[in-house]
Amino acid sequence: MADQDGPAPAAKPRRPAEYRPGGRTAPASQRGMRQQNLSLVLRTVADQGPLSRARVAAHTGLTRAAVSSLVEELRGADLLVESGPEPGGRVGRPGSALAVSDRGAAGLGLEVGVEHLGACVVDLRGEARVWSRTAAANRGRAAAQVLADLAAVADEVVRQASGQGLRPVAAVLAVPGLVGSAPGTVEHAPNLGWRHEAVVPLWPGTLPVEVENEANLGALAELWSRSVGPDFVHVSAEAGIGAALVIDGRLFRGARGFAGELGHVPVRPDGPPCACGARGCLETYAGEAAVLRRAGLEGVAMDPVGALGERARAGDARVVAALERAATAMGTALAGAVNLVDPAAVVLGGAYAELGEWLMPGIRRELERRVTVRPWQADALRVSAHGRRGPLLGAGLTTVRRILDNPGRFTLP
Amino acid sequence: MADQDGPAPAAKPRRPAEYRPGGRTAPASQRGMRQQNLSLVLRTVADQGPLSRARVAAHTGLTRAAVSSLVEELRGADLLVESGPEPGGRVGRPGSALAVSDRGAAGLGLEVGVEHLGACVVDLRGEARVWSRTAAANRGRAAAQVLADLAAVADEVVRQASGQGLRPVAAVLAVPGLVGSAPGTVEHAPNLGWRHEAVVPLWPGTLPVEVENEANLGALAELWSRSVGPDFVHVSAEAGIGAALVIDGRLFRGARGFAGELGHVPVRPDGPPCACGARGCLETYAGEAAVLRRAGLEGVAMDPVGALGERARAGDARVVAALERAATAMGTALAGAVNLVDPAAVVLGGAYAELGEWLMPGIRRELERRVTVRPWQADALRVSAHGRRGPLLGAGLTTVRRILDNPGRFTLP
Repeated sequence: MADQDGPAPAAKPRRPAEYRPGGRTAPASQRGMRQQNLSLVLRTVADQGPLSRARVAAHTGLTRAAVSSLVEELRGADLLVESGPEPGGRVGRPGSALAVSDRGAAGLGLEVGVEHLGACVVDLRGEARVWSRTAAANRGRAAAQVLADLAAVADEVVRQASGQGLRPVAAVLAVPGLVGSAPGTVEHAPNLGWRHEAVVPLWPGTLPVEVENEANLGALAELWSRSVGPDFVHVSAEAGIGAALVIDGRLFRGARGFAGELGHVPVRPDGPPCACGARGCLETYAGEAAVLRRAGLEGVAMDPVGALGERARAGDARVVAALERAATAMGTALAGAVNLVDPAAVVLGGAYAELGEWLMPGIRRELERRVTVRPWQADALRVSAHGRRGPLLGAGLTTVRRILDNPGRFTLP
Repeated sequence: MADQDGPAPAAKPRRPAEYRPGGRTAPASQRGMRQQNLSLVLRTVADQGPLSRARVAAHTGLTRAAVSSLVEELRGADLLVESGPEPGGRVGRPGSALAVSDRGAAGLGLEVGVEHLGACVVDLRGEARVWSRTAAANRGRAAAQVLADLAAVADEVVRQASGQGLRPVAAVLAVPGLVGSAPGTVEHAPNLGWRHEAVVPLWPGTLPVEVENEANLGALAELWSRSVGPDFVHVSAEAGIGAALVIDGRLFRGARGFAGELGHVPVRPDGPPCACGARGCLETYAGEAAVLRRAGLEGVAMDPVGALGERARAGDARVVAALERAATAMGTALAGAVNLVDPAAVVLGGAYAELGEWLMPGIRRELERRVTVRPWQADALRVSAHGRRGPLLGAGLTTVRRILDNPGRFTLP
């Protein structure tokens, strides 16, 4: 439900940052044009600002008069602010610089992890202004209980944000599982024990909420914080291994929303049996359980990735060898992915980002060996800028991007 | 160069059916709106016609008056015709049905194969009206010579089309090689012996020409003839094994145009050495040369795929076993592709389509075994409707689709 005191209802439930190219064009309209142009101005300032009105006009191709009218509407909705004289420009109104507001409408990010709950508030500039991560044993707990706990965390975070003049207008929830085509439903989150869980109706909070896979949100955080260009494969590894494909700045989901199942790409057709029923999947070589077994650390329950990093750093040869074997398998599967999808970059994200020191050389070696149609650039493989923080940041940013893409919803009376 | 007698210059050189999602929006304009709406009307009739003006209005959301004005412009350019009373409708002008013209502007498809030259003319309805395929030993010949021969074939085809009232406005050339980002340049066509070949300046014909990879055009033919939905992987196998990814009705090329290199997806990381420098690539198991070697048919030079089919049909156990081994490898690599990209269908195209009887069961078995996150539908794997004819048909259709997408170029004085 939309907050009754809020200026406008938040986004109707649809998937964040959906990848929707071409297709049939609807008839263009005057009203649609103004909505488009409001977004064009706001995104231009968000991407390039602070900017004077004149520079906004130059960047967008709109007339000065049109820009002034659009800017007034955006200022009235607290989406843009005057930030004083433009850097290097003249003093006074005509040259005064516009910036995206650091108050008002904001995004609430939420996260249910296997061992934690998270919440954050991200402002229109993309900055996380409030951040909370608390330990919680969520494995096997009923979704309603988990969400009730999360709502309490969220309330506290929203309260703190309110003290900074921020008003979250919608929430996005990151979950470690497959989000189905039914809106708001987690199809399968094996490590939580959730299956066909309709999360949205269980959400006790007041803001509208959407659900999204954590690996996808981690990839979006990478994209939107500009730590990588618009075409990349983001690998999220921990209990499972998933990938998110970002193509031309959008998340690519596949025909039925199941794209990115890197963990079940065959590495050796007759390799070890996988929990999925097939043999030789990447997860049987590089998933957390397989690596812990090889490393002789099967007993570790809390933060096994942290434990692997600690032992590797201490020079434990068995752990280092286990990571090297995982890296070779990841590089092989990623070589297939690169040959198929031709991304400009591959980003190692999620908790495994912390193991980059031991994983990156082996991944890079396999990519160099196996991507030969055009030479593989060594620096096209990199470690995530956000690691474990990515999904929650991406959840908050999703709402911020929605506001930038459709500010009209917030400026209309 | 554009034909001086033609009504309008043909498309400026850009890639056919490029996949271009989202991105920054340009300011909308009145003129852009009319262009969009001309295309909307023309494509609606092409997809759903014959249709009355009233039904066009209902389908598009445009007013009756707007439809009438747009239709007059399209009729004036010979792009739409009145096709008599609408089926089931009233007699007379108001209910009379509009159809896409079977005369006037058309697309010229061209093909350079290793052992043949091809040309065709496709009308606005998507029908190939003239078709020519002639044997030619192109391996190792200079590109200029090959193109001179092809121009002669093209002239004859255009002459025949002209007798049917058809006027090709642009040509697209299918080549068995990698088309680079430099327009009109074939980066590498190993079986022709072409490398960094700037084909467009060598083209002696009068129509403007563009170059495109044959596997991509085969996939587009599949798409545009509606033998498959808008999300699929099209496998083209012959001397090499390539795939084209069609996503939401558009060809997906990857960040640098190298997507779809299915032939170099690793099947076994330590498998046989591949010509590309890596080991265990799909081509080392399923490429034509590998299959011929296994089948004991290394000597066959002309149409080896035809020879394989003939022997398999005659019950040659060695040939059948070689094809089965190729199918297993193709299924393994495709399982990885399906897990990554989640297409709604996989289409076996190119010359290998003729071997479907022996290849399909093994491919299907591996897909069923290895795509387990969501069940693999057996009928999502199919044999191409066009097989070897696909690339040439796709080349002709590319221009037709351009006309439908941008009819304004042909209606402006």
